[in-house]
Amino acid sequence: MLIQPGPLLSKIDSPADLKELDQAQLVEVCDELRQFIVDNVSVYGGHFGASLGVVELTVALHYIFDTPKDQLVWDVGHQAYGHKILTGRRDNFHTNRIYKGLSGFPKRKESNYDTFGVGHSSTSISAALGMAIANQYKKDDRQHIAVIGDGAMTGGLAFEGMNHAGVSNSNLLIILNDNCMSIDPNVGALKDYLTDVTTSHTYNRVKDDVWKLLSKFSKFGKSAQEVVSKVENSIKSLLLKQSNLFESLNLRYFGPVDGHDVHHLTNVLNDLKDIPGPKILHCVTVKGKGYKPAEEGNATKWHAPGKFDKVTGEVFKKVPDAPQAPKYQDVFGHTLVELAEKNKKIMGITPAMPSGSSMNIMMKAMPDRAFDVGIAEQHAVTFSAGLATQGLMPFCNIYSTFMQRAFDQVVHDVCTQNLTVNFCLDRAGFAGADGPTHHGAYDIAYMRCIPNMIVAAPMNEAELRNLMYTAQLPRDGQAFTIRYPRGQGVMPDWRTDMQKVAIGTGRKISDGEDVAILTIGHIGNYAIDAKAKLAEEGLVPAHYDMRFVKPLDEELLHDIFRNFKKVVTVEDGCIMGGFGSAVLEFMAENGYGAQVVRLGIPDDFIEHGTQEQLHAECGFDAEHIALKVREMVGAKTPSSTSAN
Amino acid sequence: MLIQPGPLLSKIDSPADLKELDQAQLVEVCDELRQFIVDNVSVYGGHFGASLGVVELTVALHYIFDTPKDQLVWDVGHQAYGHKILTGRRDNFHTNRIYKGLSGFPKRKESNYDTFGVGHSSTSISAALGMAIANQYKKDDRQHIAVIGDGAMTGGLAFEGMNHAGVSNSNLLIILNDNCMSIDPNVGALKDYLTDVTTSHTYNRVKDDVWKLLSKFSKFGKSAQEVVSKVENSIKSLLLKQSNLFESLNLRYFGPVDGHDVHHLTNVLNDLKDIPGPKILHCVTVKGKGYKPAEEGNATKWHAPGKFDKVTGEVFKKVPDAPQAPKYQDVFGHTLVELAEKNKKIMGITPAMPSGSSMNIMMKAMPDRAFDVGIAEQHAVTFSAGLATQGLMPFCNIYSTFMQRAFDQVVHDVCTQNLTVNFCLDRAGFAGADGPTHHGAYDIAYMRCIPNMIVAAPMNEAELRNLMYTAQLPRDGQAFTIRYPRGQGVMPDWRTDMQKVAIGTGRKISDGEDVAILTIGHIGNYAIDAKAKLAEEGLVPAHYDMRFVKPLDEELLHDIFRNFKKVVTVEDGCIMGGFGSAVLEFMAENGYGAQVVRLGIPDDFIEHGTQEQLHAECGFDAEHIALKVREMVGAKTPSSTSAN
Repeated sequence: MLIQPGPLLSKIDSPADLKELDQAQLVEVCDELRQFIVDNVSVYGGHFGASLGVVELTVALHYIFDTPKDQLVWDVGHQAYGHKILTGRRDNFHTNRIYKGLSGFPKRKESNYDTFGVGHSSTSISAALGMAIANQYKKDDRQHIAVIGDGAMTGGLAFEGMNHAGVSNSNLLIILNDNCMSIDPNVGALKDYLTDVTTSHTYNRVKDDVWKLLSKFSKFGKSAQEVVSKVENSIKSLLLKQSNLFESLNLRYFGPVDGHDVHHLTNVLNDLKDIPGPKILHCVTVKGKGYKPAEEGNATKWHAPGKFDKVTGEVFKKVPDAPQAPKYQDVFGHTLVELAEKNKKIMGITPAMPSGSSMNIMMKAMPDRAFDVGIAEQHAVTFSAGLATQGLMPFCNIYSTFMQRAFDQVVHDVCTQNLTVNFCLDRAGFAGADGPTHHGAYDIAYMRCIPNMIVAAPMNEAELRNLMYTAQLPRDGQAFTIRYPRGQGVMPDWRTDMQKVAIGTGRKISDGEDVAILTIGHIGNYAIDAKAKLAEEGLVPAHYDMRFVKPLDEELLHDIFRNFKKVVTVEDGCIMGGFGSAVLEFMAENGYGAQVVRLGIPDDFIEHGTQEQLHAECGFDAEHIALKVREMVGAKTPSSTSAN
Repeated sequence: MLIQPGPLLSKIDSPADLKELDQAQLVEVCDELRQFIVDNVSVYGGHFGASLGVVELTVALHYIFDTPKDQLVWDVGHQAYGHKILTGRRDNFHTNRIYKGLSGFPKRKESNYDTFGVGHSSTSISAALGMAIANQYKKDDRQHIAVIGDGAMTGGLAFEGMNHAGVSNSNLLIILNDNCMSIDPNVGALKDYLTDVTTSHTYNRVKDDVWKLLSKFSKFGKSAQEVVSKVENSIKSLLLKQSNLFESLNLRYFGPVDGHDVHHLTNVLNDLKDIPGPKILHCVTVKGKGYKPAEEGNATKWHAPGKFDKVTGEVFKKVPDAPQAPKYQDVFGHTLVELAEKNKKIMGITPAMPSGSSMNIMMKAMPDRAFDVGIAEQHAVTFSAGLATQGLMPFCNIYSTFMQRAFDQVVHDVCTQNLTVNFCLDRAGFAGADGPTHHGAYDIAYMRCIPNMIVAAPMNEAELRNLMYTAQLPRDGQAFTIRYPRGQGVMPDWRTDMQKVAIGTGRKISDGEDVAILTIGHIGNYAIDAKAKLAEEGLVPAHYDMRFVKPLDEELLHDIFRNFKKVVTVEDGCIMGGFGSAVLEFMAENGYGAQVVRLGIPDDFIEHGTQEQLHAECGFDAEHIALKVREMVGAKTPSSTSAN
């Protein structure tokens, strides 16, 4: 079912078509664009609230600016659906986030209108400033616009960008899209400040009041007027320059304006085009705007609701035909509370992912012990280090891909100091539809090279619980990383008794001959499936769940290499420098020779798709593991089985 | 020669002794402390200007607060000499920065007074907030003080910390040590803002003026008074709350105060002790205060001047007895300008290290094409990515250890998008006296796992120039990392003609037999020395400078593994996941068997010392390479040679 766009939208193949419309028609374009997004997302799924919130802004920007010559950078990018639809991607928008289809985020390869690929937060100001300074140097007259949410503005990178922008004379317009939300409600002092400004309780009212005061006193005669004229300039400079956080950083501040008044927005943007230098427009929007259930309901739910009935607002839930295994994130969330009830030292930290990580369970149960610190991965880690210095036991939960942003803090603030911080890396491996910016591909490689770091991955829910139980026991000054994937585990009855795991020990899943399959983490379940296939052919490889990447279970590895000359390692992380390489290091250090084939993510950025599609593409799903074992023992692939 | 402390200082073995003095005696303590630092650093070297600038602050903090119960976190930490001297380390302060001696930075292992290990910038607010919230939870009544410079304040992590602190009710005092300097003069909008505030051109004057205005108008009778009373609260809230950048983030702001008036400082700190919640004291200091040549001269030079004549201020320079090889950083700096004169696309970027990286040469020669973006590694990388999208060719120079802070930006903003950004990682390998926080140990491991990334290291100055020449030629969407060490190269005549290097090619340094030594980067010169030793014993290993970690020279490796069954790899980076592991991966992928011994930095944090001391400690100096070759061929070590 292809979604039909409205009559105006159906004729907009590029922003040039939009520009031919009268300004008065833009309201209708906005309505049609919003409807098209609702129609599509309700059927195909995807991000929702953010794009609805910037419909008017998107239309106004493309109407006023000369894109793609003028360069538009969307921060994070899940709000760019309207932008995609207006820039030539309307007719294949139904492929959004689908394997081989459109990306859910702006992407340079996909369109000239996507000036900077995004996915992670807070990059837009730095990127747009780079573009602006480049074109200033090249004497190329262009406009540069960064659209950044109030959530993304809490990321330190955004502040670093503003600090540089404020001393440049670059042609940069920052649009602060202020909807009081990250995926979850935004937190932090900046949010409170923006709310203050927006609701005019201080800034605007005082501005008005002072003007009134001055004009009133000017009636009192010369003496008063003298004072007024003397003070007026200072007050003006204070109120207009210094009284605003952004003006403090030498960015001219405009606003706040209603981000849903497309007429006003186009006028304001048109004016701003002619104002030189770095400037910021504070634009107040509502996430989910124009779709009642989203506007009035839970904004977190409507961030990316999945498919839904657009009339009733009912989100479709798959009805399972059997008891389902839980999501790993929920096992984490519930287990953390279970442990924290007994161990008073446990604290929880998440940078702006309380619902995505299920840290919200602890935040609700123990509000004084669990913290959402905003989009601020670096702070989350160093703050956790600070907690650990006082003898507490932090569990800092960060998506694998976002942990890249706190690599230095893990090295410098945690591991150098032998602090016992626990890192739980959710979404390790392929993130699925979010694509390459969100895949957690590198964590094994970048974590295992750090001294004083333990790196583990559970093969199932019980193992996750055991690793978490182990991680909260006292230990001698090491950080502990537990990585697990997005999505469900394999154990519907997951509330197992927890047991201590000896650090650095793996486990034999099954005996076998000829080939040993060494897996790490959830992906080990593919090996079980592969063995089932192979068993029908009379092939019985052994299978070991190594459980720890670091320290490796050397005893187990000695045993394996004494008995096997053919080994397959399987991981859902980059092959280069990953788990398989750790096994090669062990071999070299201990003088073993064996044929080792390493399966995992190749040295390339893998696009979006379902996790299963991507595992198959990279050759480490069950089919491909079986194929590899057959290859190694010189067996033929049965004609009924195929793996491309 | 042991430096003698003054009469008061000689009796201060801990802050308890300091507290027994009269407040009036503190001026004298400051004088003695300052003199002791001057005496020591002039003889032994070390950081200088920063510690002199905080002498009064250090004395006041330990006088007023109950350290170590009250917790003092020094940001960056090179200003903490006074702190070390007052907290029991006076008598072995002469071992500062010397192998096995005191660390040049606060360090938890060294003293209870060092609450948080530092070295990298901008961590103190997050760390101290973690401590404060931990103690609030534990109902442990302590004060928490973060001392952070205005340079460190530009790092995004500091902003993330403030954003969280502002919504906490934690007992946290941030002291902004504002001296307008990083190592080089501080840059950015924040600096301009602080200068504004400090010089009272706006904030303080207007505050005064408005109070005067209000009191004046209150004489005009009831009507005026009504307006006044009505408006006063708003104005107060505006001026006192909203008019300041820090108050915008809900941190109560105090100051600016003179950071060299110890009497006033103690009074202010005493008052602040009793004010609950997060707050900031803006303290204006002068780097190098109290030592005329440093105060009046070039602050960058006096950041860490080396040994000097304390009377004349003349810095001692070693007089070389032969033409010296240049520092790698200077080869970088001059070569960049040489290339940029011909290639108009080249741009230079440094995050606050213009003199340390020698980017200042290009900043001076081409001010519109070279940028110091402040202590902001993340921004430096994403800004470079922005430049690259416009067809420019950025050379972004970041110390290896500080690049850890921009890992995500390298992955997400550069490599995912196939942007041709060049990264020059200075201080790769051991940083020397700065110790574990500054060693560039992990870059090979964390860079080589990223797709679309080239990683190379030059063995000498000519190679650096060739790699830089190659890096600025057009290529197909890959980032290019060139890592090189702190200190001198090996070629006094270094201005060689530049040649293109085929990407992914190594070179054979010398033929040989039995053992092949594979090196990467400058450390390859040790292999040459080792070969000279071994030649005397009749041992002739082959030597290859691999030059590229990624892509590896596969043709050369095939050749090597066809001819050698014993291979030694040598790198000045972490062994785990590093260059040697890349060689093991090649072997596994191509079915080679050989004995491979990997030399490099072991899986541990290595303390400070000279680079040579640390290379020996880790077993990859010339002696140890020779030793390893002998071991592999079963030869004995001649009695005249020793390596422990």
